Amino acid sequence: MANFDLMRRLTLDKGGKILLLVMDGLGGLPREQGGPTELEAAHTPNLDRLAREGSSGLSIPIVRGVAPGSGPAHLALFGYDPLVYEIGRGVLEATGIGLEVNPGDVAIRGNFCTVDDDGRITDRRAGRISTEEGAKRIEVLKDISLPGVDIDIEIAKEYRFAMVLRGEGLNGAIADTDPQQTGVAPFPPRALDPAADKTVELVKQWLVEARKRLKGHEPANMCTLRGFAMEPGLPKYADVYKLKAGCVAVYPMYRGVSRLVGMDLIETTAHDTTQDEFDHVARVWDDYDFIFCHIKYTDSRGEDGDFDAKVKVIEGVDEALPTLMAMNPDVVVVTGDHSTPATYKAHSWHPVPTLLWAPGTHMTDRAETFGERECIMGALGQFPATDLMPLALAHARRLTKFGA
Amino acid sequence: MANFDLMRRLTLDKGGKILLLVMDGLGGLPREQGGPTELEAAHTPNLDRLAREGSSGLSIPIVRGVAPGSGPAHLALFGYDPLVYEIGRGVLEATGIGLEVNPGDVAIRGNFCTVDDDGRITDRRAGRISTEEGAKRIEVLKDISLPGVDIDIEIAKEYRFAMVLRGEGLNGAIADTDPQQTGVAPFPPRALDPAADKTVELVKQWLVEARKRLKGHEPANMCTLRGFAMEPGLPKYADVYKLKAGCVAVYPMYRGVSRLVGMDLIETTAHDTTQDEFDHVARVWDDYDFIFCHIKYTDSRGEDGDFDAKVKVIEGVDEALPTLMAMNPDVVVVTGDHSTPATYKAHSWHPVPTLLWAPGTHMTDRAETFGERECIMGALGQFPATDLMPLALAHARRLTKFGA
Repeated sequence: MANFDLMRRLTLDKGGKILLLVMDGLGGLPREQGGPTELEAAHTPNLDRLAREGSSGLSIPIVRGVAPGSGPAHLALFGYDPLVYEIGRGVLEATGIGLEVNPGDVAIRGNFCTVDDDGRITDRRAGRISTEEGAKRIEVLKDISLPGVDIDIEIAKEYRFAMVLRGEGLNGAIADTDPQQTGVAPFPPRALDPAADKTVELVKQWLVEARKRLKGHEPANMCTLRGFAMEPGLPKYADVYKLKAGCVAVYPMYRGVSRLVGMDLIETTAHDTTQDEFDHVARVWDDYDFIFCHIKYTDSRGEDGDFDAKVKVIEGVDEALPTLMAMNPDVVVVTGDHSTPATYKAHSWHPVPTLLWAPGTHMTDRAETFGERECIMGALGQFPATDLMPLALAHARRLTKFGA
Repeated sequence: MANFDLMRRLTLDKGGKILLLVMDGLGGLPREQGGPTELEAAHTPNLDRLAREGSSGLSIPIVRGVAPGSGPAHLALFGYDPLVYEIGRGVLEATGIGLEVNPGDVAIRGNFCTVDDDGRITDRRAGRISTEEGAKRIEVLKDISLPGVDIDIEIAKEYRFAMVLRGEGLNGAIADTDPQQTGVAPFPPRALDPAADKTVELVKQWLVEARKRLKGHEPANMCTLRGFAMEPGLPKYADVYKLKAGCVAVYPMYRGVSRLVGMDLIETTAHDTTQDEFDHVARVWDDYDFIFCHIKYTDSRGEDGDFDAKVKVIEGVDEALPTLMAMNPDVVVVTGDHSTPATYKAHSWHPVPTLLWAPGTHMTDRAETFGERECIMGALGQFPATDLMPLALAHARRLTKFGA
């Protein structure tokens, strides 16, 4: 039985309140042989108490050995097998910069490029123009209109942008126009399914207009389109878990993925601190069964390779934690979506330290603090990240038993 | 997504060099309550250092509770789910005695038996004649020729032999001729698929000739044929992992399985010691991305029930280990294909002690030595043997991340 069939069958529509606190890229590695990881080095009295009282373990985001991107890693935390449910690249890029993608919309990634007078690509990335220069070209493209279609288009970064088409009968089964080489013209858009024929005609029109308007805007005088994708129609939290769920996150991508699984997006601002985010959680706490709260900067400092700065981010989360605990959550899960060891400067495959605290239902183990090596000895063992939601629901007394 | 689809998608064509050192039947059990296992009893300062610095864990060859044969156990270590990829018995037997099995060949196991004047079997194992007596009968059978077919036939052990047919249009979908009882004649060969009709006719001819030539060679005056199988067409290391892989092993069966997954076979001799094998590894090290090195005698001494002798084999491996470490491998995996506790005198299902050492990417855990009880506390936890290759590739930085 697929996981969600089991969840739909067993979930109750009442029970405890669950807080899922995700520190992005939480897991780390020792800086030197025999030394502590970032999480082990951090002074975290509040997290240590939760680990000491509750259950610890290590979650495996995808499969052993595979480092995940943030999209699939969060899907897994939310209980969606990322090898089964893939969010199309266009949808990830669009949600990642804050564009809404709704059922029926087609989301697309775009690259500015340089073409010669014959339309052949001479630079696939338009000389890697700055984000500011990219944004200027987007203003030129915003004027393009298509019959019966609303278009949202925004710069992502440098030569990259995202676009969402909204209208009746659109279909995203369309091949990339990027030929992945220079010296040839972009491919014309091509339907991978006859259902996309109409959308292909619209995209062709759009490209003709784009070519006209970008003329003279060298080096970004044309663009290619990739990753055509539709809203993936993921099962929703209310359906599979019977949870009214809210998301407190600052970065658009995490908000986007949360929205795709049916969470309400709580208003935040781009410069919110951890304390600000926790205050948002407190503000809406009474309205929700489940709150996902996302902290980005553990991952950012890991990618920077800045061990000490990552330690500081973790310590900041610990310091602000009393704001969350004052809400008296029934279940608290603290984890990461993947590891980003500062020594590795990238997402890695290492299992992610996880604590589950639920007085009255949690098993206390021998973990005395929150850290990778203590988690190895934890009551949760090593487990697929997709098992976290069933565990959280169980500890919240939201799952009935299976069979008589 | 099947494991190999994921690997094909994520593997890079460059990265660190991987050494997979397999001590056959490595896992053991304490000889007396409270005592050490073979591996724990062995003095292994070199292995202990790798375990102390790197990650330890326990691998589960097939599923919990199931003791594997050497064929499926190695397939699992190589990343092939042994419940999905089965190597036919004829192919295992043939490769096990050093016969080559190539695509299109049909491999067969044979048993000498005794038949009466009416052709009815009176002894299915021909009085369990000695290997020497068996080999004499094989000489008699080597003369048989079939139109358009090359035949390789060799004694395996006592009354058992293996045969490989090579030629155009052969097919191995043929039922056993062994009736599994005495008092009846062997079954005539029978096609399980019309595509095997031609091969059945050839096998029938061969059996008529075999009967004629074995007459008078009592008690082995006839034979039955079983386990008809073709080269299994396994995905190859170069394809699924982008690895140029070599095998250093002495026993034909391990060489055979390695060949079936696309490894190059490095020349060895039947009486090579552990040190000789490691010297072979050193000799070819520069030419490969991945070397599998197989040590047989841990298993042999376990099957003998000789605890102390198995300890000595392990100590010999440890003593020779500096030869391998001098190559500066990026990733070293030391494990077994299964457990063969001396107290059990047979392959067992117990999870297999495993260490993974990869400075720069490994998580150090609290295992201080290489042994079963330390592995329980290791960073790798207990994991399916098929996860070992993805882990090794990840630690060699040969996997890109999954999704954005």
